[in-house]
Amino acid sequence: MASSVSAKPFLGSSAADSVSAFRSLPSDLSRPSLQFLIRTPASRKLQIKAAGSSFGTHFRVTTFGESHGGGVGCVVDGCPPRLPLLEADLQLDLDRRRPGQSRITTPRKETDTCRIYSGVSDGVTTGTPIMVLVPNTDQRGHDYSEMSKAYRPSHADATYDMKYGVRSVQGGGRSSARETIGRVAAGAIAKKILKEISGTEVLAYVSQVHNVELPQELVDHETLTLDQIESNIVRCPDPAYAEKMIAAIDAVRVRGDSVGGIVTCIVRNAPRGLGSPVFDKLEGLLAKAALSLPATKGFEFGSGFAGTYLTGSQHNDEFCVDENGRIRTRTNRSGGIQGGISNGEIINMRVAFKPTSTIGKKQHTVTREKQETDLIARGRHDPCVVPRAVPMVEAMAALVLVDQLMAHYAQCCLFPINPELQDPLSLSSARRGIEFAPSEEIANQL
Amino acid sequence: MASSVSAKPFLGSSAADSVSAFRSLPSDLSRPSLQFLIRTPASRKLQIKAAGSSFGTHFRVTTFGESHGGGVGCVVDGCPPRLPLLEADLQLDLDRRRPGQSRITTPRKETDTCRIYSGVSDGVTTGTPIMVLVPNTDQRGHDYSEMSKAYRPSHADATYDMKYGVRSVQGGGRSSARETIGRVAAGAIAKKILKEISGTEVLAYVSQVHNVELPQELVDHETLTLDQIESNIVRCPDPAYAEKMIAAIDAVRVRGDSVGGIVTCIVRNAPRGLGSPVFDKLEGLLAKAALSLPATKGFEFGSGFAGTYLTGSQHNDEFCVDENGRIRTRTNRSGGIQGGISNGEIINMRVAFKPTSTIGKKQHTVTREKQETDLIARGRHDPCVVPRAVPMVEAMAALVLVDQLMAHYAQCCLFPINPELQDPLSLSSARRGIEFAPSEEIANQL
Amino acid sequence: MASSVSAKPFLGSSAADSVSAFRSLPSDLSRPSLQFLIRTPASRKLQIKAAGSSFGTHFRVTTFGESHGGGVGCVVDGCPPRLPLLEADLQLDLDRRRPGQSRITTPRKETDTCRIYSGVSDGVTTGTPIMVLVPNTDQRGHDYSEMSKAYRPSHADATYDMKYGVRSVQGGGRSSARETIGRVAAGAIAKKILKEISGTEVLAYVSQVHNVELPQELVDHETLTLDQIESNIVRCPDPAYAEKMIAAIDAVRVRGDSVGGIVTCIVRNAPRGLGSPVFDKLEGLLAKAALSLPATKGFEFGSGFAGTYLTGSQHNDEFCVDENGRIRTRTNRSGGIQGGISNGEIINMRVAFKPTSTIGKKQHTVTREKQETDLIARGRHDPCVVPRAVPMVEAMAALVLVDQLMAHYAQCCLFPINPELQDPLSLSSARRGIEFAPSEEIANQL
Amino acid sequence: MASSVSAKPFLGSSAADSVSAFRSLPSDLSRPSLQFLIRTPASRKLQIKAAGSSFGTHFRVTTFGESHGGGVGCVVDGCPPRLPLLEADLQLDLDRRRPGQSRITTPRKETDTCRIYSGVSDGVTTGTPIMVLVPNTDQRGHDYSEMSKAYRPSHADATYDMKYGVRSVQGGGRSSARETIGRVAAGAIAKKILKEISGTEVLAYVSQVHNVELPQELVDHETLTLDQIESNIVRCPDPAYAEKMIAAIDAVRVRGDSVGGIVTCIVRNAPRGLGSPVFDKLEGLLAKAALSLPATKGFEFGSGFAGTYLTGSQHNDEFCVDENGRIRTRTNRSGGIQGGISNGEIINMRVAFKPTSTIGKKQHTVTREKQETDLIARGRHDPCVVPRAVPMVEAMAALVLVDQLMAHYAQCCLFPINPELQDPLSLSSARRGIEFAPSEEIANQL
Repeated sequence: MASSVSAKPFLGSSAADSVSAFRSLPSDLSRPSLQFLIRTPASRKLQIKAAGSSFGTHFRVTTFGESHGGGVGCVVDGCPPRLPLLEADLQLDLDRRRPGQSRITTPRKETDTCRIYSGVSDGVTTGTPIMVLVPNTDQRGHDYSEMSKAYRPSHADATYDMKYGVRSVQGGGRSSARETIGRVAAGAIAKKILKEISGTEVLAYVSQVHNVELPQELVDHETLTLDQIESNIVRCPDPAYAEKMIAAIDAVRVRGDSVGGIVTCIVRNAPRGLGSPVFDKLEGLLAKAALSLPATKGFEFGSGFAGTYLTGSQHNDEFCVDENGRIRTRTNRSGGIQGGISNGEIINMRVAFKPTSTIGKKQHTVTREKQETDLIARGRHDPCVVPRAVPMVEAMAALVLVDQLMAHYAQCCLFPINPELQDPLSLSSARRGIEFAPSEEIANQL
Repeated sequence: MASSVSAKPFLGSSAADSVSAFRSLPSDLSRPSLQFLIRTPASRKLQIKAAGSSFGTHFRVTTFGESHGGGVGCVVDGCPPRLPLLEADLQLDLDRRRPGQSRITTPRKETDTCRIYSGVSDGVTTGTPIMVLVPNTDQRGHDYSEMSKAYRPSHADATYDMKYGVRSVQGGGRSSARETIGRVAAGAIAKKILKEISGTEVLAYVSQVHNVELPQELVDHETLTLDQIESNIVRCPDPAYAEKMIAAIDAVRVRGDSVGGIVTCIVRNAPRGLGSPVFDKLEGLLAKAALSLPATKGFEFGSGFAGTYLTGSQHNDEFCVDENGRIRTRTNRSGGIQGGISNGEIINMRVAFKPTSTIGKKQHTVTREKQETDLIARGRHDPCVVPRAVPMVEAMAALVLVDQLMAHYAQCCLFPINPELQDPLSLSSARRGIEFAPSEEIANQL
Repeated sequence: MASSVSAKPFLGSSAADSVSAFRSLPSDLSRPSLQFLIRTPASRKLQIKAAGSSFGTHFRVTTFGESHGGGVGCVVDGCPPRLPLLEADLQLDLDRRRPGQSRITTPRKETDTCRIYSGVSDGVTTGTPIMVLVPNTDQRGHDYSEMSKAYRPSHADATYDMKYGVRSVQGGGRSSARETIGRVAAGAIAKKILKEISGTEVLAYVSQVHNVELPQELVDHETLTLDQIESNIVRCPDPAYAEKMIAAIDAVRVRGDSVGGIVTCIVRNAPRGLGSPVFDKLEGLLAKAALSLPATKGFEFGSGFAGTYLTGSQHNDEFCVDENGRIRTRTNRSGGIQGGISNGEIINMRVAFKPTSTIGKKQHTVTREKQETDLIARGRHDPCVVPRAVPMVEAMAALVLVDQLMAHYAQCCLFPINPELQDPLSLSSARRGIEFAPSEEIANQL
Repeated sequence: MASSVSAKPFLGSSAADSVSAFRSLPSDLSRPSLQFLIRTPASRKLQIKAAGSSFGTHFRVTTFGESHGGGVGCVVDGCPPRLPLLEADLQLDLDRRRPGQSRITTPRKETDTCRIYSGVSDGVTTGTPIMVLVPNTDQRGHDYSEMSKAYRPSHADATYDMKYGVRSVQGGGRSSARETIGRVAAGAIAKKILKEISGTEVLAYVSQVHNVELPQELVDHETLTLDQIESNIVRCPDPAYAEKMIAAIDAVRVRGDSVGGIVTCIVRNAPRGLGSPVFDKLEGLLAKAALSLPATKGFEFGSGFAGTYLTGSQHNDEFCVDENGRIRTRTNRSGGIQGGISNGEIINMRVAFKPTSTIGKKQHTVTREKQETDLIARGRHDPCVVPRAVPMVEAMAALVLVDQLMAHYAQCCLFPINPELQDPLSLSSARRGIEFAPSEEIANQL
């Protein structure tokens, strides 16, 4: 059997014809459709998860918790002091991420109401670790009883066992999308800092679901708003394509299957100078951040993979001076990043999500006892993850940018900046008259 | 003019038609072809570079040096003791990276001969920082005199100025491909460790140059060898396609233009269990590593962006048991990684490189004094970076894997492993009878 | 000579004569005893705390929370999987740290009952972040109303304001001993790992309170037990000296004053080879860990400051071979650490704690409005911190050792060890027949 | 014999009588004075050293190299750009550290001339990794032939073998004082930054050699100068005590023995607000830094161990307002640090160094083959390390302060500071009219 295993090369993105070839692929396999009795799993049923749970150096986020258990959340260490912050600031994005928000997401019911336990006092951050906790409420462990016997295909079950040597059941533990609650909460803080410091906005939307691709020219990144994105349940800013995407999801949902798609994310008014020239290039940090989300398969920014078809003279972004005397690029194939460092143009990126691996169709697999078997997953799942992935991608991008903003401040703003070449970070903030006074709603509480 | 700047959306990978549209794009711009006298730059001519120069946690690499100056190299801290290591081990990969190795690379002449200054004694690593230095020999600073006046389009010139506030000339400092010497040297050590511990091999090759795409079925990842890759100057394992790729590079080389392409990288016999479930997913770490290389635009693994066109039932990799009683997957759309953790199948990834931004054609740009001007780069450059990027991609992948191997060992092998679910890392090594004795050539020196 | 040692207080900047004047100093000062109306502080009353809230690289602890607020606790990331762990394991040490445990500690009442929210399943660690939360229950914010107007001398009030620019009241926020709950909980896990892996024990006790010094010869570090330490409320293993220490505390307690003291900590059966030769010397890591505890003023190990009075021939520890054929030292002035690395002898260290800065006596100080004033602290406080510091010192030592154990494993046990020179870490564990089975109490739950 | 090994408790600082008792201690041991033939060591003679070779987070120093080999040095990553820097700036401190500088240091001859390979251009830092290399020139490996057979008492020989499993000879590899060259070079850069940013000065001096203790009142920390310290070869600012110290060193030097001592270090004009409240308290970071130097046994700051003899009312530093309207403390038992954070007063600390372990007297020890033997070290060594330790302690303190300065900047200066409570860091710099122009000597080069 080993040869049949190894004979299947992975699929690259560029080969259009290989997509169609792909569809006929599973039927090629001559798999023995063994049926057998699975012996009852032992009494030790463990959830499994792991290290690598912190992100960032200066604005450092640690998430904890799993799909089933007391709850999930995060600790943010290193948040600048004196930032107005309320639980409502986090809840907004948590509600965008929440399961059960529409018919195209998992029917699992969680209100995902967060509480800030530390680090905020009288509505203002104090510089301390901010601990945010969201209790779990709708746990149906029995849904997973069958899955605990067998490795779900393309899921984390098998690899967690290989790594930790304990058995992972009940929602996949840390591989659950529920872990991303801590990221979205921390990301909401990061987005607020970016907005205050430099008017920077991070916006993501769905640009592809299965075969439905939103043409680029239908979205103007200069004027795109959160309202446009949130105007429909699939989070595509174009209403007509949103309908097509919803239809594509409904089509697979009813037959227990799933589809993938692409989330596009932009950063508008990004400060210049973020990132660094070598290992911490801004694009590398964004790629790691994006591909740390569940179900991701690829990342590109600027011209991306399509840029490989161009020549240098076609691809280069020529410089010019705009009406405000600022150095700009005429085109933006660089995606707002040159040499690993932001240049002030719109940062854009695209993240590929595979179809959800948990599906309601019968699949062949093996049990932990290495017996071949069939599996039909009964847990609730999203037929397509991209609508709920939108706030997750925004959060990860914002976490990268705040962390790099602070790194830049530490190294390059210690001495007075060189005004001929550099823009002050705080200028835009000062320009906008922000004074970090308690907001009105806070003032009313005092 | 600001509106024309902002009106150019970035280019995504999937839109085939946008590729053709793209080509006519530069001519669309109504750019004032101002010609003017550029005032002499001030006497302070600085090279510029920056922090973020370390990679990895356990096997920690710090690179230093720039294109022009005393030399370049790296310090590797945390290397396991008792690994046989000679300068020749590093030189092999440095020669694959070296400029001037063929007519399709930059004619800059550097022998790139490395010397190990510390951390190795009597041909064996001692656990200490390994410092490797490669002196610079062929510096032609005067080639850059004109470029020092103006920002080269899509190069790091402008962003370095924005970040550091000092002037970057003479080869772009840390943005030079010369910085990657330290990575390739460290990567050679990492590859040797992987080979010893688990028979793991890291191999990369060129799978696309401009419009020439190597069909996947022409390469068998199970049997691919370094010799096949090194059999031609473009490093494509298929001789016929190699010729086409070389022709494509020659076509742009003669007219001073450049092209991009794709490097595919595989990891064979990767240990199971590397990576972790949340922020340090193996794919995220590999993406960051790959996109920290100069000129990269995108990363995908397994089914990648093409995987978004499939349904879950088409995409999932079913499990089976192979002839050795090991759990395997029948297909490998997961690219050897599930839930952020390696599953023992071949890890595969594809990295997109843009066309080299330094070209010999006239381009419009601005000077540091914010005057519009024209620029024709006279420095030596690669018409296509991908042939020399092959050892760089291998190096970065190997650095990630060794670092994760050590992390896994620290957390998950402290207590005796669970043999029902886990494979011992050292088994394969023991099985192969490796005893870490000094190799024959070392013994002769003693 | 001790008197000469202690008679020379390290007194800093303000003056030579203040040395002799030291004890009578406050009355010497001709301070204008201005009495004035303090203007009401603004309505923004913030608790303040900060970054730097994580400890360790592999076994990584992040604490959160402050004296007043929702609660305090920690997240432990990187804990090895498959370690039996119950809340009761943590509660034991939390009870030793708890306020209100005796008449010589602060009367603040907190049960400090912990709950594990994540990372443990069916009584076994799973490798995931372990979040431990202890809610605050006995908050008396009004006790601090007066202190909010003025900086308490030698407390963190002033420096927190200088750093964060927000006002710190209500128990001093993160400077509260309450923050150490998270450390003690994490330390309990670390101690359990050390015990399992190598039979390593970490024990601390009070060896000095004010002028009462426990003679070294009264404690045998080879046989010292936790029961001996816990046999009295001051945690001194010698009953007679314990009485003297308690009397010394009572003497200052009744007049609202405070005293300092010394905690001695030993590590028995420490694995050989922990620590590293340069910046991460084991003694440096232990010193940082100890001096991260509130109210600490000094750290020494082995011969310590007294060792400076010896010659090399008096000080050196000669090597010998013991009855088991193991290399040992005859004396232990090295304190179990040579060249930054543990040698298997008992590690010993002494940590100096200053007298508690919060006292019930009138002191001169200034308000935040820079007006001189008088202050009598009314908050509850410990007359002497050392009895409750004992489990804190143990916890910090254990956190260092586990982290270094994992670091050593990652770098130096990847390849088969060299049995002629090295001891296997897991040998002792295997020798003691530990199988990491669920303990009996857990088994009963299943 | 094991019991005799374990019966020797470590010696604490306070016990006066134990000091005298200590001197007769070695003679108490009934050691079998076995004499035997040592078999020739195997041909593999390795130097050994290790990980943990990086220090700092933002201003990150990595040292490399060992006593014998190509050379030693460091890489500094994260240095702020636009700092004037010449090799001469580093050489000044390297000369203070250099062996052979006087009769009371090791006669080993090394000029220790440094070269900057990267990161500085036209006399100004560029933000890139600064690599500094000092070649080794006076290697006498044969001096160590005898020592390679046996573990030198209280040296790193045995523990390095235990950790790495390879044999350490030839100067002890990374445990050599030669490793500190990289620290001193990096520290010189750090001192220059501190001076520029805030007029901060870091000065250390010898305050004790063996039994010769410099009375505190003889040094005024407010006015102490580098010239006073450098006015004699022992680096004690009081000429009379300097003579006594030199005599004490000469006394042991002639008979092949060694003595220890204490280095006092102060930081004047330290910015307020450096350090953080929990794990990264400034005192903890300084302690780790100091105890990472070879031969250290203890660290204290402010009142130190002597502070344990005071009551809270005696110990507290009362606040007042100085003539410039700034909040100050009347006394400085806090040593310039309260709650882990600098308060602007003089930071002071004392570091204990043991007598050099390498001595010219016969000692009993064991060989690597576990045979008891005698040893007389023949390598050149310092009879007392403290005179050369002075620039090392300064360097480590400066590295901590710069790193914390950058951390503070990243977190707490991102938003406009609160002028009522906080001082701007750059104020003092601006006030002193520093403009970061190229210095005159640089200007002349241009």
